[in-house]
Amino acid sequence: MAATGAGAKELKNHHNDCLVQLSNPNVAAMKEDVLYHFSLSTSTHDFPAMFGDVKFVCVGGSPSRMNTFIRYVAAELGLAHPGEEYPNICAGTDRYAMYKVGPVLSVSHGMGIPSIAIMLHELIKLLYHARCSNVTIIRIGTSGGIGLEPGSVVITQQAVDACFKPEFEQIVLGKRVVRSTNLDEQLVQELMQCSTNLNEFTTVVGNTMCTLDFYEGQGRLDGALCCYTEKDKQAYLHAAHAAGIRNIEMESSVFAAMCGACGLRAAVVCVTLLDRLQGDQINSPHEVLAEYQQRPQRLVGHFIKKSLGRA
Amino acid sequence: MAATGAGAKELKNHHNDCLVQLSNPNVAAMKEDVLYHFSLSTSTHDFPAMFGDVKFVCVGGSPSRMNTFIRYVAAELGLAHPGEEYPNICAGTDRYAMYKVGPVLSVSHGMGIPSIAIMLHELIKLLYHARCSNVTIIRIGTSGGIGLEPGSVVITQQAVDACFKPEFEQIVLGKRVVRSTNLDEQLVQELMQCSTNLNEFTTVVGNTMCTLDFYEGQGRLDGALCCYTEKDKQAYLHAAHAAGIRNIEMESSVFAAMCGACGLRAAVVCVTLLDRLQGDQINSPHEVLAEYQQRPQRLVGHFIKKSLGRA
Repeated sequence: MAATGAGAKELKNHHNDCLVQLSNPNVAAMKEDVLYHFSLSTSTHDFPAMFGDVKFVCVGGSPSRMNTFIRYVAAELGLAHPGEEYPNICAGTDRYAMYKVGPVLSVSHGMGIPSIAIMLHELIKLLYHARCSNVTIIRIGTSGGIGLEPGSVVITQQAVDACFKPEFEQIVLGKRVVRSTNLDEQLVQELMQCSTNLNEFTTVVGNTMCTLDFYEGQGRLDGALCCYTEKDKQAYLHAAHAAGIRNIEMESSVFAAMCGACGLRAAVVCVTLLDRLQGDQINSPHEVLAEYQQRPQRLVGHFIKKSLGRA
Repeated sequence: MAATGAGAKELKNHHNDCLVQLSNPNVAAMKEDVLYHFSLSTSTHDFPAMFGDVKFVCVGGSPSRMNTFIRYVAAELGLAHPGEEYPNICAGTDRYAMYKVGPVLSVSHGMGIPSIAIMLHELIKLLYHARCSNVTIIRIGTSGGIGLEPGSVVITQQAVDACFKPEFEQIVLGKRVVRSTNLDEQLVQELMQCSTNLNEFTTVVGNTMCTLDFYEGQGRLDGALCCYTEKDKQAYLHAAHAAGIRNIEMESSVFAAMCGACGLRAAVVCVTLLDRLQGDQINSPHEVLAEYQQRPQRLVGHFIKKSLGRA
């Protein structure tokens, strides 16, 4: 059935727009949806009016960093006004913080798979209730590097688990469910191109290991518990490097799995704070770490500007 | 070898004091220990002076709730002064918040196993560096109940996983490590006695299921993803109830495992915000939920007061 005439074509394009979808038929039938951890509800907030124009969602662990990011993006996009504050949309809770400017939403997710999963369930429902379309979502985070100069940025090709498998495993009703952790290949290339344009810091494309623990789970020797040697640790980290892993963090696998299941175009861009082959402790001076943490923000800020035709 | 004379007995008692121990020989040899997520370091902070007198540590998800708790405990113990503020000891970061009054430390841990695990690694090292002894640690939290009136308080007998097993599993250097989730039986009884003394709300002793996800992982029908029916969910929750499970939360198993491995006397006291057999959404009015959330604080506040001989 070919569309005929401009009107029909527009309608068709509209229908082809990539609306945010849920992988859950129950939500459409709910009278009210309380997004408890955001302190927002469809009965008290007008989601299409508040969020309908969102095209880019950036998420990261720390609330203050996501506040910094919205101010940075506002300035980059020419949407900042002198003295303007960006109110926390989730001010009714201290679980997460959320900020918005123009088509960009900036949301904190805390640390670890469960914390970001709760946030993503409620965020994806928010975008669905708001009838958002063509949304790109990017995690901007910090990580430990493997064989990279500290301060290097890694764009994730594939998120892998602590056994180096590109899978996210979850227990649902007592049974094991495994989901793919594929990310958008084209988006990886677009982001890499942005880094080349910027030419400010080293950026690589590599696999990212996502663990459930920061100490034993990442082979650190300096936790409260540790029952292995430096030699065991080095063998593990070198095997990870040989498997194409360039950094280790704690959220990418569930992020890739959930965004994939709901048809969201997703990427993970993390800076490395240290080289884990050289040590475990993050003891660089505060100002050095602060500059490192700006790098994913600068890269993704440039990407958004370019996508909107303002770069 | 019986001790002879009062001096020898005191010395013996002193040596029998339960110093906080690490299950990691490496830390003792470290020149400096940076507790990165607390923004504290042994080279810049005097841990014995700051924390040496700590006997009770209370942890919970929300930073603002842990601030409320320290003010409540200060008043209960007669340590509050008019207009006094309790500064956040971890003000250098927004990952966690930490407050102290007298022998009580109050620390937030965010949501989920990875987030509380990072906090516990650094907290246990903090207590070790401070040479604390005879420390009791209690998680005061919120949870979903199973077959209980909302607002009921559950003292955890045993933390179990999503397959109802009393185990905490972790991947260390790519291999599966399983730890016990036993908690202190005597402490459970002491806390139950405190609730009986208070006589303010229903309190039960039961098993607590600890999951890695709030939506699919707890059998909710209202997440962004869901591939099972109300009937499947009810079967799962009823099986959990039959296994002695009375509430579901997201931190108890790693809390029990890590405190157990480091010889800390530990308990978990959570209020139930809803009965999961009746629904999934937390939609009680804010003031009702706020009162519920005070209940574990009141119970544990009473316990601390009684332990210090001030009740």
